[in-house]
Amino acid sequence: MRTEFRADLREINQLLVVMATAVRAALTRATTALLTADADEAEQVISGDVEIDSLYRLVEEKVFELLARQAPVASDLRLVIAALHIAADLERMGDLAEHVGRTALRRHPAVAVPSELTAVFTEMGEVADQIGDRITVALSDLDVAVAAGLERDDDRMDALHRQLFEVVLGPQWARSAEAAVDTALLGRFYERFADHAVNAGRHVVFLVTGENTLPVS
Amino acid sequence: MRTEFRADLREINQLLVVMATAVRAALTRATTALLTADADEAEQVISGDVEIDSLYRLVEEKVFELLARQAPVASDLRLVIAALHIAADLERMGDLAEHVGRTALRRHPAVAVPSELTAVFTEMGEVADQIGDRITVALSDLDVAVAAGLERDDDRMDALHRQLFEVVLGPQWARSAEAAVDTALLGRFYERFADHAVNAGRHVVFLVTGENTLPVS
Repeated sequence: MRTEFRADLREINQLLVVMATAVRAALTRATTALLTADADEAEQVISGDVEIDSLYRLVEEKVFELLARQAPVASDLRLVIAALHIAADLERMGDLAEHVGRTALRRHPAVAVPSELTAVFTEMGEVADQIGDRITVALSDLDVAVAAGLERDDDRMDALHRQLFEVVLGPQWARSAEAAVDTALLGRFYERFADHAVNAGRHVVFLVTGENTLPVS
Repeated sequence: MRTEFRADLREINQLLVVMATAVRAALTRATTALLTADADEAEQVISGDVEIDSLYRLVEEKVFELLARQAPVASDLRLVIAALHIAADLERMGDLAEHVGRTALRRHPAVAVPSELTAVFTEMGEVADQIGDRITVALSDLDVAVAAGLERDDDRMDALHRQLFEVVLGPQWARSAEAAVDTALLGRFYERFADHAVNAGRHVVFLVTGENTLPVS
């Protein structure tokens, strides 16, 4: 029973790794679409979200099967529910990548990001890519130190998010309301992407150590 | 066993009703704070979110206890997980009310909403209040028709959200970037509030009928 439980949990974990890989690719591609006004890339992110959603459904099904077949209790049960939380966070991260892609597409052939914010969004994309990499590795190696690194990535993302607002709300800003709106929403999409990764990372720590470090915001 | 399961589920349901009531009050209060620049109201929304978070934790604990003690399978198991999803949506709705409160407080003593958008935000607040009422009643009466009404509320909220962008991106708009940013983010908070309510409502339908009408977006 115990061996079977472990095997089932491993299978779920592998699906989470596949999800994290897909989510990372989606946001990286969305960032490219955003910064280069690449409609093809944007459309691929948008259509690709269906796959991430299917993976989420699959994890949910596997979790139900495992719960029904093994009826785990106590800490084992919490592991399974943690996996479900991670899947939900990854699914939402996929949605946020899709939102970035949709914004890029809406302004195409123009670039949605004003030139004075190219550097900030480039860096937000890099941090998001690192976040995507880190959550994938954390899940695949069940590495607590890697998962904990997500908190630092999130701090960097928050700093970039503040920097973005300093530009938009600063005295030099002379762009349209449309640019201000796009920038504010895009900033939020990246920031939320990082938040969900931190949540997922905390659940990974819990998966590995059994220690709950999960404050509800 | 079956009777006990039902009693446990009822207890969880009652907690969800308490959560929904608190969430509704939070957003209604946040809307007042927003439209009247009332710092006290805003601060109460912000500090009150801790209670909603505690309720979420409590539901999570009750769900774990129920799963561990009763080891429900098949459809019963799905009911319990649906309750967990509803709690997560309500918790997030509380966060969004808090975001509205924080925006009101950030611009205090000024009103964050530009006067030409007062009517739109007033109506968004009314729709959100109705949403809060509907999800509370749907949970307390386990009423599928009431839950289904959330989809219509969400359509109204989406229409208001579009209307808001028409104003901000329209030719008459002559406000600061700050006003554009606030408006875009506030609009998103209300829209997401409605989205989460729709999700929660679909889980209520599932709780009652066992029918899964839950597309992953």
